[in-house]
Amino acid sequence: MSKTIYVTLLAAFVGGSSLAQTQTTAVAEDFRPTATTQEGRQSPLVNSERRVRVRIEAPEAKKVQLDIGAVKYDLMKDAQGVWTGESAPQDEGFHYYQLNIDGASVPDPGSMYYYGASRWGSGVEIPASDSSFYQLKDVPHGLLCETFYPSKTTKNNRRVYIYLPPGYDKNPAVNYPVLYLQHGMGENETGWGNQGYTAMIMDNLIAEGKAKPFIIVMENSSIDLSAMRRNSPPQAGQGGQGRRTGGPMGGMNFAAQFERVLIDDLIPYIESNYRVIPDRAHRAMAGLSMGGMQTRSIVIANPEKFSHVGMFSSGTFTPAELSDVEAFKNGAKLVFMSFGGREGGASRIADAAEEWNKIGVTGVSYVSPETAHEWHSWRRSLYQFAPLLFK
Amino acid sequence: MSKTIYVTLLAAFVGGSSLAQTQTTAVAEDFRPTATTQEGRQSPLVNSERRVRVRIEAPEAKKVQLDIGAVKYDLMKDAQGVWTGESAPQDEGFHYYQLNIDGASVPDPGSMYYYGASRWGSGVEIPASDSSFYQLKDVPHGLLCETFYPSKTTKNNRRVYIYLPPGYDKNPAVNYPVLYLQHGMGENETGWGNQGYTAMIMDNLIAEGKAKPFIIVMENSSIDLSAMRRNSPPQAGQGGQGRRTGGPMGGMNFAAQFERVLIDDLIPYIESNYRVIPDRAHRAMAGLSMGGMQTRSIVIANPEKFSHVGMFSSGTFTPAELSDVEAFKNGAKLVFMSFGGREGGASRIADAAEEWNKIGVTGVSYVSPETAHEWHSWRRSLYQFAPLLFK
Repeated sequence: MSKTIYVTLLAAFVGGSSLAQTQTTAVAEDFRPTATTQEGRQSPLVNSERRVRVRIEAPEAKKVQLDIGAVKYDLMKDAQGVWTGESAPQDEGFHYYQLNIDGASVPDPGSMYYYGASRWGSGVEIPASDSSFYQLKDVPHGLLCETFYPSKTTKNNRRVYIYLPPGYDKNPAVNYPVLYLQHGMGENETGWGNQGYTAMIMDNLIAEGKAKPFIIVMENSSIDLSAMRRNSPPQAGQGGQGRRTGGPMGGMNFAAQFERVLIDDLIPYIESNYRVIPDRAHRAMAGLSMGGMQTRSIVIANPEKFSHVGMFSSGTFTPAELSDVEAFKNGAKLVFMSFGGREGGASRIADAAEEWNKIGVTGVSYVSPETAHEWHSWRRSLYQFAPLLFK
Repeated sequence: MSKTIYVTLLAAFVGGSSLAQTQTTAVAEDFRPTATTQEGRQSPLVNSERRVRVRIEAPEAKKVQLDIGAVKYDLMKDAQGVWTGESAPQDEGFHYYQLNIDGASVPDPGSMYYYGASRWGSGVEIPASDSSFYQLKDVPHGLLCETFYPSKTTKNNRRVYIYLPPGYDKNPAVNYPVLYLQHGMGENETGWGNQGYTAMIMDNLIAEGKAKPFIIVMENSSIDLSAMRRNSPPQAGQGGQGRRTGGPMGGMNFAAQFERVLIDDLIPYIESNYRVIPDRAHRAMAGLSMGGMQTRSIVIANPEKFSHVGMFSSGTFTPAELSDVEAFKNGAKLVFMSFGGREGGASRIADAAEEWNKIGVTGVSYVSPETAHEWHSWRRSLYQFAPLLFK
């Protein structure tokens, strides 16, 4: 399975401009289905060079492309009408992609589907050298639960995902800390549980004694109240992958809107319906990209609400941004900032963390090696962040 | 929005044979996004005649079709390269479908995705006149939870979905009955929670006092042990919609294989890890299609295990099939059989139910009006079945 053949790759359109790029490349012929390939399907496949191969039968098509990482790769048709082609090597971890068939952008029928880039569509997992921390193992497993709660702010029942750690049900006398964990722009409340592997990361950390058991609450912070009012309440029951709640992405100032949902509706609901320790010392907030920026805004506006704060690929946060430093530091335990090593911000977070240490709040920075603004950076960030919580 | 235009529909290929069917039909122009349309998308749409309209931009394509209900409908291209077309009226409820673009069968990029017909792909919801029973309402909501448990039979950790009723967490002194609820051929453990609306149906029934609160356990009964042994243990963390466990569909005798998982692994796990009443009187089993046939086989082989039995679109079950009638009837409370009214078996279940009544076990039959071998029949079946359990 490791013979090497030579093929001609026609790498194509980047950001709308055509790069007439023709290269002859050795492609290792050890392609295998990956974690995001549907059972029994042969697309997408990934090889040891981290190239993505897709295959689709389209006998009447004139042109078929793989669109991944902002590059389109031409596929070649065989005598049976099956189109096949490969991408350049991709970073380890998870990437959204799509196919283009005679001008139609469609999901790969062989992949599984994820919400990101503001749509449900194809994703591909490039096996990572450090994937052990989110693999399914023979350890006690928590529950990743979908439920709905009433929001006074949006005047409907909103969907929320809740991770209950292993042992939650068996230990009814124990109350738990809570992490409120937010997705990024164009994503929703399913992201951390699906492509983020949150339950697996926590199950494994808890089994190894590296993290304390805590509850994680994942909501949709892409709220546009004006759009909510125009629409009727969402119909539910549309599938773990697709049930619609919350408004479309059209509005701005998501942070201010989500702040009301979180502070006025969600936290009170969680604290009165689950076995939670309802104080600041046992309440954390974190998010990735837009979700980290929302975290910062909400912490600044509510300096006495959270003791542990995480921002993944979300810029920096320093004490200078607080109007009431005393209110925050009197009870704050941790400010954690991370970036993928390929992101611009990676160089700035160590200094920002040091600013917190100077005023007596633990500041931690983490850079994910050789990853960009992608889920693998955020899985690793959660894996680094979770052991620091509620100690 | 209710003007009527006349279009020419070219209905096409049924089961591989070409029906050269050209009809001029009035189509009501009141198409709207439906519960299975992604937020902000304009495909699929459904009108008041229950036609499905799809739209896709494919400027270079020669031929685009909508494939639904075993019929392919040609789409028409406009000057902007957008293809649009409608199906004939469909039954109320949920239907799988796909697009065909120059010979490629692909999901509709505008829909949400469901597992059925042995693939993750597009589904469309035709709003039903009786949809109130599974709508999201302002009532207490249970939890629909994904977790993993160790199986000695398949020698790995298997995914299972568990519905915990409203109040489960708030009433730690209460123990609950359990229904084991199975999907059909080509479906998996996500079906009842996604397109089946199980959590919504139960939340609403419980809120109205029509059903007792009970736990529902949903596993994957498409097990092929020989295939399992060939494959390495599945990687987890692949998304609420897509995490792979269990084997492929290649093997036969699923009932015997799933019986071992259910009896030896799953029931003991549930009864030692959740607040369950671990006796026959509080243990039920039901399933749809293949899942109902598995239910019958497992009940026949284990006559003292379950008190309530449900078979939805799965044929009939009569006392004559039991080798040990006494072992079953001494503790059995209910045998429920249902069919969609458009299915052939609908006429036989009333007589079969009467056979049970004659020997002192309550027999109930239910026919879902104007539905076929589809999820709407099974949602309605659960809605009829659940109130009869554990009374």
